[in-house]
Amino acid sequence: MSLTRTIQIGICGFGTVGQGVWKHLERARPELEARLGAKLVLARAAVRDLRKKRDVKIPAAKLTADPLAIATDPKIDIVCELMGGTGLARQVTLAALSAGKIVVSANKALICAHGAEIFATARKHGGHFFFEASVAGGIPLIKALREGLVANRFPLIYGILNGTCNYILTQMEERNAPYAEVLAAAKSLGYAEADESLDVDGWDTAHKASVLTWLAHGLWVKTDRMLVEGISRITPADFKNAATLGYGIKLLAVITRDFAANELSVRIQPTLLPEGNVLANVNGVFNAISVTGDVVGTTLYIGRGAGQDATASAVISDIADAVALLSHGKGAHHMGDVVPAAGTSPRLAPPERIRGRYYVRLSVKDQPGVLARVASVMARHHVSIASVIQNPAEQDGAASLVLTTHESDERAIRATLKNLARLPSVLEPPVLLRIGDFGN
Amino acid sequence: MSLTRTIQIGICGFGTVGQGVWKHLERARPELEARLGAKLVLARAAVRDLRKKRDVKIPAAKLTADPLAIATDPKIDIVCELMGGTGLARQVTLAALSAGKIVVSANKALICAHGAEIFATARKHGGHFFFEASVAGGIPLIKALREGLVANRFPLIYGILNGTCNYILTQMEERNAPYAEVLAAAKSLGYAEADESLDVDGWDTAHKASVLTWLAHGLWVKTDRMLVEGISRITPADFKNAATLGYGIKLLAVITRDFAANELSVRIQPTLLPEGNVLANVNGVFNAISVTGDVVGTTLYIGRGAGQDATASAVISDIADAVALLSHGKGAHHMGDVVPAAGTSPRLAPPERIRGRYYVRLSVKDQPGVLARVASVMARHHVSIASVIQNPAEQDGAASLVLTTHESDERAIRATLKNLARLPSVLEPPVLLRIGDFGN
Repeated sequence: MSLTRTIQIGICGFGTVGQGVWKHLERARPELEARLGAKLVLARAAVRDLRKKRDVKIPAAKLTADPLAIATDPKIDIVCELMGGTGLARQVTLAALSAGKIVVSANKALICAHGAEIFATARKHGGHFFFEASVAGGIPLIKALREGLVANRFPLIYGILNGTCNYILTQMEERNAPYAEVLAAAKSLGYAEADESLDVDGWDTAHKASVLTWLAHGLWVKTDRMLVEGISRITPADFKNAATLGYGIKLLAVITRDFAANELSVRIQPTLLPEGNVLANVNGVFNAISVTGDVVGTTLYIGRGAGQDATASAVISDIADAVALLSHGKGAHHMGDVVPAAGTSPRLAPPERIRGRYYVRLSVKDQPGVLARVASVMARHHVSIASVIQNPAEQDGAASLVLTTHESDERAIRATLKNLARLPSVLEPPVLLRIGDFGN
Repeated sequence: MSLTRTIQIGICGFGTVGQGVWKHLERARPELEARLGAKLVLARAAVRDLRKKRDVKIPAAKLTADPLAIATDPKIDIVCELMGGTGLARQVTLAALSAGKIVVSANKALICAHGAEIFATARKHGGHFFFEASVAGGIPLIKALREGLVANRFPLIYGILNGTCNYILTQMEERNAPYAEVLAAAKSLGYAEADESLDVDGWDTAHKASVLTWLAHGLWVKTDRMLVEGISRITPADFKNAATLGYGIKLLAVITRDFAANELSVRIQPTLLPEGNVLANVNGVFNAISVTGDVVGTTLYIGRGAGQDATASAVISDIADAVALLSHGKGAHHMGDVVPAAGTSPRLAPPERIRGRYYVRLSVKDQPGVLARVASVMARHHVSIASVIQNPAEQDGAASLVLTTHESDERAIRATLKNLARLPSVLEPPVLLRIGDFGN
């Protein structure tokens, strides 16, 4: 096959992911060119420091320290934004889209913060924005939602979207080790950033949930409209209690939509998952997502959620899609350009409508009458107790009291927790986990 | 958005799947039209019997008894071939492709038998052939392999591809029920066809493996070049033995490629899967596929493998892709049009190169010296025994002897079985299952 067209690719951000894309694209190039009917040229890369030594060697003439020079270079057809952040990355993305280019991005934080602006800019100037690598690493989840399951509405999407948290939780469970110790080990292995908050407090998962919510429901939900909770207060004892009850613990993004009420909720919560649920057994840095469509039923996707290679696999699939689209000429329409809200645009459900079962762990004084006082607070808020595990006092006379509840709503459980925290016999703020009975 | 283009869709074969496509497409039409920027018209349907009553009502004027009339109708842009079979279905498919149309197919038997001819015809006339629904029902697996994982080569793909077999095996395991009884129940529930051979003897799985092999490796492998084994000789005792050894039993398609030797093998085999393998816990009519790419690592896909709704979901996703492609004008290139063999085209590995561990169950006379004779036959073929389970005699003085082996090759184990079958103390042809240590 003669390759009549040449597509020029620029990479902004040449760290782990950028170098992975360059390396794997060079290797897969002959097959990709045959499949796409176009010659692919890795034309330029923007780096932060021109003098830094890198594993992937590229000619100095192809390097620049100015990513905006790539974004506005008329020769470049596809710009990969792999710098991260929401400042310069936003400028680069908007500049490239304004020039009618296709931008390929792995930047979930940017999409969550500026998605509406990005897609509007793409539409206005005939550019396109692809983002397979922004959620679930190498799993082709974006493509599945946008194209493979296009016949479906999605009442429920939930999953493990942050490999760092899943690694930490898995280590805590398997080694019976406290959070701080496992986190420190994860940092020294490079699995967690120096500032761990983005991962362990749930914000990275929230950014990804925002991307999925937009794709599935056509609505931009920013993190301040979600319930976002992290994993830092979970202890090895929680894993033991959960196992006693027949559950594992995972940090989940949960996106539910009630089509009758036209309400949507997005929440990031450490969740007790029944041991029989496949996701309860997805360990380490893996991601897993359960997508229920109203036509297809429940489908499940598992794979590496991060890392140089898995992310490069996703970025290259976007590049291939971009090349295919470019072959159809300027202004070609792509299925990802329009994401209609299924039916009328949904509104966010007020918290009191979000119902579920709960796991509450209290650190209490080891003295008579405590359980009675706790139970009475719960009864006052109509939160019905399903089971109680009382562990003997360990230190300072503090005992652990674990309660699971029957179904209640978020407002009632929050009010309950507030009042439990005020009891003199309750020593620390209560720990709240959700129980995930997703059917399946 | 104004819908400037109109796409006319014809459906050939208006049984369960055809009606499902019509029904769900009508319901999802407003959203699909907005997303695709085109008006979708369900123009015609070909049925076998014009007078038959159907759940989905369509105007009589849209019905025809002649699918070729739809395939050659100049008004029709997209032809869905949902009739099944390899005779008339082939004619319809080739006629539509020759007319430059896009054909959407769920017909794995047809693709397996005539895939090369179909794709050549599409290329010659500027038509396209889409087949998401042919493998793994509603799971967007074809799209994942063809587009989402386009950066990868695939050393290993394995999975549960036939829901009927998985339903039967699950029922046998859970209810401790014999094969014939479960099969009869599956037939009465409509989960198995009157002629069950296509499912239970592995041929349907083989057709699907052929499709995946072509997609992943660019080679057409017909069923006579595969090792194909079915599930009909498995007994409840095999599940008990497997559980004792820490395994479940699944009918798997296994597609392996050794890139160094440039060899490929495709086999359909009932397989012992370690209980920790996610696929060992995928039950009932669900399908599950593990895809290992050299860049992305291992990814996993689970969902309903058949049924009206899941199949319709896949067909509609192909229709959406077809509409997007049609919007780019006649002769537009699609990523699925060219499937290059990764590297040079591989050859099929001779059986002696296929290595693995084995489970052998023998029905033997309950008398002294039998194990010694069996062990001696295995030793002669250099097949090393890993474990032995001897169950007491049940009836007619027959005892069950189960052996697992260390790694050996297919030729050695087949020669071993042949010689074991000749032993006077062995009462029935041996039952051979593979042990699937896929790492995962």
